[in-house]
Amino acid sequence: MSLLALFAVLLGHFFLVKASHYTHYPRVTLTDKDVRFPRIHLSGNNSHIKLLHGPHDNIVYATSHKHLFQTNFHSSKTSRMSPVFGEGCRSNDPTSPNCHYNITVLHKTKDPNQLFLCGTNGQQHTLCCYMNPSDDPFICTPSKDIQDINQYINEREPSLLIASSEVEEFYTTHSGTEGSVGIKRFGKNRLWTENSGTEQRYVSLVASGQREDRLQDRLYAFYIEKNRDPRLDSDLWVPRVAQVCMADRGGPKGYLQFRWTSKLSARLFCGDYDSRLYFTQLVDVNTVLAERWQDTRVYALFRNGWGMSAVCVYTIADIDRIFKTSNFKGHTGSVPSPRPGECVKDSTKLPMEVLKMVDKVSEMEEWVTSRPLLVTHHYYHHIRVDTVQGKGNVLFLSLENGGIHKVLERDGQVFVIAELQPFNYTAHILSMMLHSSTGKLYLGSSRELVQIDLGSCEQYGAQCEDCVLARDPYCGWDGNHCTTATNKTIQDVENGNHRVCSNISRGVTASKVYFPGSSVGAADGIRIHLSSKYFLNCPTFSSHAEYSWRHHGNTTAIPCISTGSEYQCLLLIESMGPEQQGTYSCVSEERGYHRTLVQYQLQLDSGATGLASPRLACLGLVLTLVLTLLC
Amino acid sequence: MSLLALFAVLLGHFFLVKASHYTHYPRVTLTDKDVRFPRIHLSGNNSHIKLLHGPHDNIVYATSHKHLFQTNFHSSKTSRMSPVFGEGCRSNDPTSPNCHYNITVLHKTKDPNQLFLCGTNGQQHTLCCYMNPSDDPFICTPSKDIQDINQYINEREPSLLIASSEVEEFYTTHSGTEGSVGIKRFGKNRLWTENSGTEQRYVSLVASGQREDRLQDRLYAFYIEKNRDPRLDSDLWVPRVAQVCMADRGGPKGYLQFRWTSKLSARLFCGDYDSRLYFTQLVDVNTVLAERWQDTRVYALFRNGWGMSAVCVYTIADIDRIFKTSNFKGHTGSVPSPRPGECVKDSTKLPMEVLKMVDKVSEMEEWVTSRPLLVTHHYYHHIRVDTVQGKGNVLFLSLENGGIHKVLERDGQVFVIAELQPFNYTAHILSMMLHSSTGKLYLGSSRELVQIDLGSCEQYGAQCEDCVLARDPYCGWDGNHCTTATNKTIQDVENGNHRVCSNISRGVTASKVYFPGSSVGAADGIRIHLSSKYFLNCPTFSSHAEYSWRHHGNTTAIPCISTGSEYQCLLLIESMGPEQQGTYSCVSEERGYHRTLVQYQLQLDSGATGLASPRLACLGLVLTLVLTLLC
Repeated sequence: MSLLALFAVLLGHFFLVKASHYTHYPRVTLTDKDVRFPRIHLSGNNSHIKLLHGPHDNIVYATSHKHLFQTNFHSSKTSRMSPVFGEGCRSNDPTSPNCHYNITVLHKTKDPNQLFLCGTNGQQHTLCCYMNPSDDPFICTPSKDIQDINQYINEREPSLLIASSEVEEFYTTHSGTEGSVGIKRFGKNRLWTENSGTEQRYVSLVASGQREDRLQDRLYAFYIEKNRDPRLDSDLWVPRVAQVCMADRGGPKGYLQFRWTSKLSARLFCGDYDSRLYFTQLVDVNTVLAERWQDTRVYALFRNGWGMSAVCVYTIADIDRIFKTSNFKGHTGSVPSPRPGECVKDSTKLPMEVLKMVDKVSEMEEWVTSRPLLVTHHYYHHIRVDTVQGKGNVLFLSLENGGIHKVLERDGQVFVIAELQPFNYTAHILSMMLHSSTGKLYLGSSRELVQIDLGSCEQYGAQCEDCVLARDPYCGWDGNHCTTATNKTIQDVENGNHRVCSNISRGVTASKVYFPGSSVGAADGIRIHLSSKYFLNCPTFSSHAEYSWRHHGNTTAIPCISTGSEYQCLLLIESMGPEQQGTYSCVSEERGYHRTLVQYQLQLDSGATGLASPRLACLGLVLTLVLTLLC
Repeated sequence: MSLLALFAVLLGHFFLVKASHYTHYPRVTLTDKDVRFPRIHLSGNNSHIKLLHGPHDNIVYATSHKHLFQTNFHSSKTSRMSPVFGEGCRSNDPTSPNCHYNITVLHKTKDPNQLFLCGTNGQQHTLCCYMNPSDDPFICTPSKDIQDINQYINEREPSLLIASSEVEEFYTTHSGTEGSVGIKRFGKNRLWTENSGTEQRYVSLVASGQREDRLQDRLYAFYIEKNRDPRLDSDLWVPRVAQVCMADRGGPKGYLQFRWTSKLSARLFCGDYDSRLYFTQLVDVNTVLAERWQDTRVYALFRNGWGMSAVCVYTIADIDRIFKTSNFKGHTGSVPSPRPGECVKDSTKLPMEVLKMVDKVSEMEEWVTSRPLLVTHHYYHHIRVDTVQGKGNVLFLSLENGGIHKVLERDGQVFVIAELQPFNYTAHILSMMLHSSTGKLYLGSSRELVQIDLGSCEQYGAQCEDCVLARDPYCGWDGNHCTTATNKTIQDVENGNHRVCSNISRGVTASKVYFPGSSVGAADGIRIHLSSKYFLNCPTFSSHAEYSWRHHGNTTAIPCISTGSEYQCLLLIESMGPEQQGTYSCVSEERGYHRTLVQYQLQLDSGATGLASPRLACLGLVLTLVLTLLC
């Protein structure tokens, strides 16, 4: 049973997808043989990598535990910096173990020349500071407000830096069961959460975007929590979303002081309501900000225990509605006013009733639900989402082997445009960064950074139809080439209908049929011994196309002998004879677009054709040989 | 990502299988080209088929809605009977709609010449009767005790006929939500269940086997029940097992009269306790009776919503323990005596306390649990299990496409011996019957019956090693052939270790290398034009073996170009040249057994080898041509 058949079974039982099951299988696979993937080597064998786009194009910052790399994909140059955390470490004793800071946080700041870094030393002390990578020595100047973090910040914890002229706040999370698990805020108004005793693992922190009333600005944390239900048919982990108000100042002295007074949580559901098939292992989240904060879309990547992944989309409006309207789980009495979770100017003045309720019952009864946009038999690790104006969204999903699936999302339907394999070895992608304005995707493995140019389109083929069938919203046909999409290029992202090409004038590559050179020198065909074996091959490109062979006038297709790994369509001739003579064409069909990819002309070498007598054929051969001897 | 890779992911995350992931992929695929599958055509397009082995070998009875077929696989003959239900229908008006009975039940009786049939007519009246298929006309004589069944018995409901000199009882079930859902008994002591209101679907009825104290004989029903839990993260169906005492006579007048007083139910669990990955859709059950009733093994076939199946094994002792020792779900008070579910001589005299408890709380708190024996990415439909004395058990699992997986089970480990494809079209297997004593498996599709000879072994190969690597407990090496296993044949079901063959004398087929005849007539090799293409192929047989090519002295293996559907191992020569000359061997390796399967000798036809000058080579060719002309 093929994987495609598996998908068919899966989709048949789970999601009623109108399109064929092909849409969940990458149309093309592109390796570094097909596309140029600029790459930069990173010294060391790094166990974690954080990426940040620099102030100029092609400049990417990457941090490992010890170093900050400034890489330039234009010049292929890398400079490696070892930031010095704090003045004391520079002047007194830089070799002191207290000065060995592991870099765990990297953020942009409002100043394009300044980076925000945090490092933790052996004393579990975290120092957050600002650094200009063009100033040597690389002194990291401590932040004024974000100070005294006497704990370890794990490099895997999500974090956010909110810095403006008025405020400088750093939000992060603490996963696990020990200590103050939850969302934390450092800065002038420090806040944290009381430990719930249940293990939590934080995946993402999202700022919803500015609201009309800035007081209502919220932050959302996406995490999984160990299920308290001990039954064998309950899931090990449950996915959740929590909110906090950014204006929260904690409770008054004596109750919830320095604790969140606005934290609410709700269960996330990603699955099919009717069949009760769902995903619980939340692994990554990426947000697409919208003009209206309500429309901001949260793309959540889930997995299940069966080797499958799913992507669900929640809007901030979906989440907000649950927090604003759902009953509180296990709470039967009346809900005080202001409703817990509402953002107020001064939370230290909240009625005791509200504070108590937030402290005791902060979980919503209703769940934030969504049906998956995409379900596959792959384990994805990261998700990044780009919006291509007027064409749809593109999802980038990292695979376990170092590959990336590039997926078009349009009107709730998905189409897997390509599997990109930028590494020519099995790499573990540690980090993925999308830089939308320059159209680049960056991947970090333990040893190198790779740049993927989203506007690279030539690999789809030399015909307008190739370009349109690709359905890549970054690409279009300019009359001569498949190239970065502009207003003037031809494309049909919606349907991949090749007929949009029919009205345009053809480029130089209009001839669609290739005659590979004959191996025996005869221009009119390939001569093959009687009874000899021979094979014809036809390179295949699109896994959504159907390939087959035609033998001269015969209309019946000869199916491909398809080879496993290299996707060739072979035709094996077990024994050459008169009937095997003639023209062989390899044809493909995709979304109604038919074409001949390659043609071969085969002839019997013995001369024993149906028309010529054997003797005449032999004489012909002798003549050919004499000519050969003369050359 | 290949299916094997998927299995690897699956197994890696789910079951820690010591053996390679290959064990869950059929070692060989056998179609009607490899094995003779005797088949018998059935007239009509039957939507259901019930099979029963006749009193003689090769005789199989099959019922569709209207007909009883008596098929003889020895003579390939079929006789079709239309049983006449009741004397009235024979003499009065056989065309009356009341005489149109659909056959829904078929059982053996203590008399080998008598069949037990039930049919239901348009008036929802069911008539059970006895018939001798060798008596024409085919009058079905109504049973004395099993009478007045004024309801429809669906042909999909499991049923059991318990008939001895003392007793004649017919047990069946009623699935659904309407009417008296549950286990029913017809005969002198009719009993049924009160409707629980929750939908139930019955899969199997199992008699546990005779106990030391016959009074304790029980019957077990396996079914799925609609989950009452409405949460999105709960399963739609839950699998259960229920018990009833065969000695049950119902309650006294006024309370539970004609109702089971011994019915208890428990939840079944088939999955991994730690990862909480489990299966709930129970689809089929097959029982392997043991000498001690406690050891009787219930093989339960489950599916999940992701296109996967699993087999779990429960012993009657496992089930009995839960019913005898578990707390009652939701019951906090003391448990009366006799404990509900204990079998008593006269259930009409049970204390009211016991009757009330059975009526209100008949569900066990503890679950009957098992870890899957087998998990695959296939949807299986039926399971049958055979015991091969001293060698292990063999599971037969029907696939959705008409195929069968033959699986060895030994010491809790499984090995998929073969995928059998007896139909050369996509068939839907409606029924599967194992006849252990004659070593035959029968499959019923809507149009034909197929017999699979379990002792057919020649297809595994002509070598002792082929026979041993197959690990088929029905087969062994007799010194000359792979044949039906006896005490004297060589086999190693446990490990498939080919070294058990090393001490025996070889048969006639000792030579392991074949030189296929040259296509150009030269005995010393195949002559190929300079620059011509050529291919070599090597048939592959075992998906657990690794195939590759070797080019004369070269020790480096050339990987196969493997073809998708027909499992060939190709070697493609893109352009023949001097370096391509020499001997090519296709070699395989499986469990440490290396062999050469095929060898080819290739030679340049132009004579342009590294030794001869081009001119001399051309002269050589002219000479060859002259010789050709002379012939």
